[in-house]
Amino acid sequence: MPEDEVKEYLQKVIVNPDTLDAHDIFDLANNDPLVEHKPIKNVNSIDMQSIFSGELNAYQGLFLLNQDIKINEHIFDKIWNQSDIHICCDGAIQRLYKFTKHKMSKDMSLKYIPEYLVGDFDSLDINIKEFYLKHGTVVIKQETQMSSDLQKSISIFKLSFLDVLKNYIDASKDNFGIELYDGIHQLDSKHDNDFENLCKEKDFRVIAFSGLGGRVDQCIQNISQLYHTWLNYDLALNKQPKMIFVNEVDLVFKVPKNGFYITWPKEWKLLKDTPVLLNSGILPVGEPNHLVYTLGYKWDVRDFNLSMINGFVSSSNRFSCATGCYTHADKDVIVNMEINYENLSKLLKNEKD
Amino acid sequence: MPEDEVKEYLQKVIVNPDTLDAHDIFDLANNDPLVEHKPIKNVNSIDMQSIFSGELNAYQGLFLLNQDIKINEHIFDKIWNQSDIHICCDGAIQRLYKFTKHKMSKDMSLKYIPEYLVGDFDSLDINIKEFYLKHGTVVIKQETQMSSDLQKSISIFKLSFLDVLKNYIDASKDNFGIELYDGIHQLDSKHDNDFENLCKEKDFRVIAFSGLGGRVDQCIQNISQLYHTWLNYDLALNKQPKMIFVNEVDLVFKVPKNGFYITWPKEWKLLKDTPVLLNSGILPVGEPNHLVYTLGYKWDVRDFNLSMINGFVSSSNRFSCATGCYTHADKDVIVNMEINYENLSKLLKNEKD
Repeated sequence: MPEDEVKEYLQKVIVNPDTLDAHDIFDLANNDPLVEHKPIKNVNSIDMQSIFSGELNAYQGLFLLNQDIKINEHIFDKIWNQSDIHICCDGAIQRLYKFTKHKMSKDMSLKYIPEYLVGDFDSLDINIKEFYLKHGTVVIKQETQMSSDLQKSISIFKLSFLDVLKNYIDASKDNFGIELYDGIHQLDSKHDNDFENLCKEKDFRVIAFSGLGGRVDQCIQNISQLYHTWLNYDLALNKQPKMIFVNEVDLVFKVPKNGFYITWPKEWKLLKDTPVLLNSGILPVGEPNHLVYTLGYKWDVRDFNLSMINGFVSSSNRFSCATGCYTHADKDVIVNMEINYENLSKLLKNEKD
Repeated sequence: MPEDEVKEYLQKVIVNPDTLDAHDIFDLANNDPLVEHKPIKNVNSIDMQSIFSGELNAYQGLFLLNQDIKINEHIFDKIWNQSDIHICCDGAIQRLYKFTKHKMSKDMSLKYIPEYLVGDFDSLDINIKEFYLKHGTVVIKQETQMSSDLQKSISIFKLSFLDVLKNYIDASKDNFGIELYDGIHQLDSKHDNDFENLCKEKDFRVIAFSGLGGRVDQCIQNISQLYHTWLNYDLALNKQPKMIFVNEVDLVFKVPKNGFYITWPKEWKLLKDTPVLLNSGILPVGEPNHLVYTLGYKWDVRDFNLSMINGFVSSSNRFSCATGCYTHADKDVIVNMEINYENLSKLLKNEKD
């Protein structure tokens, strides 16, 4: 099949899977990594490049969760710069200080000052706290143990997205005027309807650094937050992964049900010696799921029941197509994509030159 | 309530939860960390000490999965010594070599020679392979990409537990006489009934090192293996977590439904400056679950619906009782327990003195 016919066929199949001719199309895709299938207009999609490129038409928050920051500094800088607000959790402020002061090629601690620091501050280094306070960080203590660091950050983010948090912040008052036990969650609750309404007009995205290493209960708790309602107010044809975990080796997010395209620049896949994209998984975390079909993986599937209980987890899969993959599941599903951040960093630098 | 009455009451409650007086018992347990409730005979239980103490009446396998070994060397030695068979996956052999040669207080590489090395060996260091071959490791290449490192190790373990693997191994033949593509899985299948029968007579346990860090798809794939049938052939009153992941910071295993006791020596909990046990989670990873009640946690619950989809994950919980906790769930459930291995190591050394 000539390349333009393949392209046409792929797009037809995505709109109507019943037109799929047995497994031919999978073989085609697998045998031809140069097939460039682009999402058509009425299919939801995410461009992975938008996480790093600064061309996002949405309010973006960067969360620094409490694990060591182990990421290429150029990538860190890219994501920091394109984020509108930076929220640091508890002990993560020490890790941010260490990373920007000592791990970067030179001391950059003054360049990366988060707008907010939140947590119970059980073991906060007082000197580091003072350093950030002095340089403008609003430090909000929240004593409640009933919510995680991530949940505290989410409340601050939602109030910032609504542009109301500043009205509650009063630097002359104790704890910047926020009630000590769970003030930010109370304010978040109070504005819940406003948030739902704003989501119909304006997009947002959260990038969470390093939330999935370390203790398994924290990892599972944080992944479960991807299912939360506040991330799912979109209209049917504007569904987006709204929170993305950026880990040391991979990206993790939730893909909406009923067909979703993930795209990337072809250089991510085609530079053989310095590939950006490596392994991937489709993970029925939280509940069993059903894959109608996938397209663009080394091992594509159709009519496949995913379930951790039965051992049907799609892991260590690879991408076969040049610029994207398509996943059609009956329910929202968690995916991960392994990224070589060093190679990505080189690629992004070359583009700039 | 005097301490002996508390003890009696706790045991009554465990046998018949309906006798629970509202939430009083939780307050009692929470206020008195010295309550030592021991499992009664007809409740399934695991003694956490048995993972490290060498007093296990079962055939134990140690799996080394392909992530850096970052554990206290004394603990590593304890677990190694009480394991009957040691199976190393693919690149993990390089990590084992590095750990025992360079990271231990002296070169101990000759002390820790695994009986088996299995994998596709895509990027195996030939010198390290030769070192272990020379010292007796049976090196079995398996080319299939349709099973994970963990699944390959499981097949080898099951055949060893059955004591039949040695009959298939022939050092004079290529690949030790094992068919190159997926020979061990074929042999495992062939003996599946034998395995089920042996499980009725003899216990086994697998300790898997470092399977849950790194890529999230590998982590979820490996956790899903805890649900697999081969680990669940027990009779109703002999249910045990049969596979335990030992990670850098925690232990992860599956707790059987309908009531299960986890116990530990009281020193794990009561040494205030050097606690062994820290945070814990009850994790509805593969499907929603229902907790009838828990006992012995800082935040005990009753009639609690666990679900990642609804954000109801029990994480960052703490233990309140001195020597154990009890979990009664409607379905098998994954738990993790954060362990300070340095403190545990000191404790185990002191016991020896």
